[in-house]
Amino acid sequence: MQLVLDYLKRNQARFVAELCDYLRLPSVSAQLQHKKDLRACAEWLATHCRQIGLEARVCPTQGHPIVVAKTPRRKLNPRRPHFMVYGHYDVQPPEPLDLWQTPPFEPRIAGRSIFARGTTDNKGQHFAHLKAVEAYLKTGTPLPCDLTFVIEGEEEVGSANLAKFLKSHRNELKCDAVVVSDTGMPDADHPALTCALRGIIAFEITVHGPARDLHSGIFGGAVDNPAMALSQLLARLRDSNGRVAIPGFYDDVAPLSTYERKQIRRLPTSDRELQKLLGVKKLFGERGFTAMEQRSARPTFEINGLTSGYQGPGSKTIVPAWARAKITCRLVPNQRPARIRKVVCDYLRKICPPTVRLEIEAGHGAEAYLVSPTSPQAQAALRALREAFHREPVLLREGGSIPIVNDFKKVLGADTLLLGLGLPEDNAHSPNEKFDLGCFENGQRMSALLWPELSVPAAGDA
Amino acid sequence: MQLVLDYLKRNQARFVAELCDYLRLPSVSAQLQHKKDLRACAEWLATHCRQIGLEARVCPTQGHPIVVAKTPRRKLNPRRPHFMVYGHYDVQPPEPLDLWQTPPFEPRIAGRSIFARGTTDNKGQHFAHLKAVEAYLKTGTPLPCDLTFVIEGEEEVGSANLAKFLKSHRNELKCDAVVVSDTGMPDADHPALTCALRGIIAFEITVHGPARDLHSGIFGGAVDNPAMALSQLLARLRDSNGRVAIPGFYDDVAPLSTYERKQIRRLPTSDRELQKLLGVKKLFGERGFTAMEQRSARPTFEINGLTSGYQGPGSKTIVPAWARAKITCRLVPNQRPARIRKVVCDYLRKICPPTVRLEIEAGHGAEAYLVSPTSPQAQAALRALREAFHREPVLLREGGSIPIVNDFKKVLGADTLLLGLGLPEDNAHSPNEKFDLGCFENGQRMSALLWPELSVPAAGDA
Repeated sequence: MQLVLDYLKRNQARFVAELCDYLRLPSVSAQLQHKKDLRACAEWLATHCRQIGLEARVCPTQGHPIVVAKTPRRKLNPRRPHFMVYGHYDVQPPEPLDLWQTPPFEPRIAGRSIFARGTTDNKGQHFAHLKAVEAYLKTGTPLPCDLTFVIEGEEEVGSANLAKFLKSHRNELKCDAVVVSDTGMPDADHPALTCALRGIIAFEITVHGPARDLHSGIFGGAVDNPAMALSQLLARLRDSNGRVAIPGFYDDVAPLSTYERKQIRRLPTSDRELQKLLGVKKLFGERGFTAMEQRSARPTFEINGLTSGYQGPGSKTIVPAWARAKITCRLVPNQRPARIRKVVCDYLRKICPPTVRLEIEAGHGAEAYLVSPTSPQAQAALRALREAFHREPVLLREGGSIPIVNDFKKVLGADTLLLGLGLPEDNAHSPNEKFDLGCFENGQRMSALLWPELSVPAAGDA
Repeated sequence: MQLVLDYLKRNQARFVAELCDYLRLPSVSAQLQHKKDLRACAEWLATHCRQIGLEARVCPTQGHPIVVAKTPRRKLNPRRPHFMVYGHYDVQPPEPLDLWQTPPFEPRIAGRSIFARGTTDNKGQHFAHLKAVEAYLKTGTPLPCDLTFVIEGEEEVGSANLAKFLKSHRNELKCDAVVVSDTGMPDADHPALTCALRGIIAFEITVHGPARDLHSGIFGGAVDNPAMALSQLLARLRDSNGRVAIPGFYDDVAPLSTYERKQIRRLPTSDRELQKLLGVKKLFGERGFTAMEQRSARPTFEINGLTSGYQGPGSKTIVPAWARAKITCRLVPNQRPARIRKVVCDYLRKICPPTVRLEIEAGHGAEAYLVSPTSPQAQAALRALREAFHREPVLLREGGSIPIVNDFKKVLGADTLLLGLGLPEDNAHSPNEKFDLGCFENGQRMSALLWPELSVPAAGDA
């Protein structure tokens, strides 16, 4: 193991340069014009995997391809543990571009951070695992397990083709656990195992008014304004206590246990720090819960975007023909996406006035996830974190959604260990996204240390 | 007078051919590449005015020139009435070109309509007045008044240089009334005097939340969503009765008189037709007023545009950093733009929650306009309309704003008689703009009959 850790220490500068190459590829999965860039990024990744000693291939899907890379297997041993590392090479759209200090696809190192779209979410994080396995392979250190990397290109657009891929490659991918670094840690001194994730449903609400934009002088006053109708619809969906005001929305929410609320209170982030980090005048959320609980263990109704009428400079005196809101709801364990979608849609249809036409387009959905923090695998992960970071790890519920984790459980029968390396100030999904180079290096060490910990059968295992 | 009317009747074919020449000049004021065409159009117009017997000149401005043409004055008589006819030779951009059945600057006659950009707005309409004065001058019929035509080239881009021109030519242009044919009539059987226009204030509301777009999974729930905060602010500004719910908004609104409401009910447009024309499921406006009253005689609060967060394809799971609404309020007589701006801003600031920061940017403003329909000049205009069209004219309030009319009052001390010749189906500002040849001819007759009616001192006048 010391050989492996020394190799990692010695090669940090090269690893960062390689990561920069990876980050230069603008793999924006949501934007059609980047289709070729996604393909190029997948090819780059597969080539890199081969260079470090893995057997890699680019698997086409109906959308963007999936890269599969494996440690070479000398002989088939059905009792040898097999773990899967999941990540995604696609990134969020970089817009608004004018808020980036340097261009999103020209990586910049400043202090102990690397800035570019996709640094923390997720190229930098899964690259740490690749570097750990490289250290094993290049130093000739035997791995105690087989590893398969599955790095997809559609995570930011709902992983539309991954579940199908898992099903059709069920035998090849069957494993003892899945390891994912795509979450966060509260700060650089608190490595974390995330034991719960929120689920999500996405949809678009469009309110249609007149057949075309109307002159607001000639017709304004006698026809409902779709932007006003939309505002009035949305306004009714959240009350002044920060609660989602949709009947039935909270029906299935599992209450937080005293133990869990205590764990959450152990976390180092104060409300004051959070307020400063986010740059808001005042925090705001569901009354009766701490900010940390609100953002991780409670469901939300969030407007992600608004579009209507004229948005250019100056003014244009129109009654717009339509107005649209992009919405996502975060869900918590026990809330079923289909049911929540139904209660939201039913309520919107109920309160929509007869002067406009409501159109609701369903987007992706995913259940929340929960894994027991006292399971042998979780305990193994906590040991690896402790040793790699030289710090006592914390347990986290994370507010984000990684829908595919539910498929890992359903299709591959495997729990997922969420060992996130991102920091709250990393600006994931925002301009000036970054990744901490300390987290990058500690992440490599954690990955290297994890495989022996996970491969030892725990007391009580068969 | 019979000589004048006979002359008009006899020369319709030539008038239409001349109008076609005028329409062929692509005087699109908004488009830089047409700067020379504007100049050429002004020169063509001045030449034409000279040919019919007027004294005409092209006056340069900082923008496009203004054409001034006068009836020849034999001797200075300070008691002889002086009227000004205002129009504009510039036209709206013709785009989208593919929706035109024939090219916008190649006039086409079909049935009783002439199709081209600028036919109804405004070349055809002020050309009718020029043909009427030509009939006087060419038949040697003495005019009972002096006339000055002021035809500008920047109406479609905000008349930026006209107010200054009025001020610097105040003495020359001082007059007893201004006549403008740049509005509409409800249909060909209802000639109309427009006695009121709505005013306007424009502004932008921006609600600022976090310092940057945030990941809605990681932070959503503990921070107010600016798009939701904006929706909740906007939602409170209009109640379910269609009334603007801003304290003080209606304070100064002059109530509609029984006489005016009766006049408005005489108008031929039905709610059913309006609903069909606009393509809405149901009309909606301030309770207690008809659709025609709502769109012309009542103030409005209109959202012209909404912008927030992610607007591209698919979804982006963010809490947006800010949300913005573009707003215009239409104002009615007695409402002062500055005061309404204040009550709107004060109320928004009052109801804005402490979790976001509100920014309000002021745009342009203009007062509403009202001329009494029972004044001697309005009555004279109604008589001319009745005689020219052989129909009982209607009184109109128009919902749009013509800011320059307020300058005529302030600078020249003159009321404006709005005697529009356009029909609702004329496609002003749209592809396939047209002008009805019946309206053109009746408009010439109305103009010819107007000058004697206006020049007779009414009972009660000095």
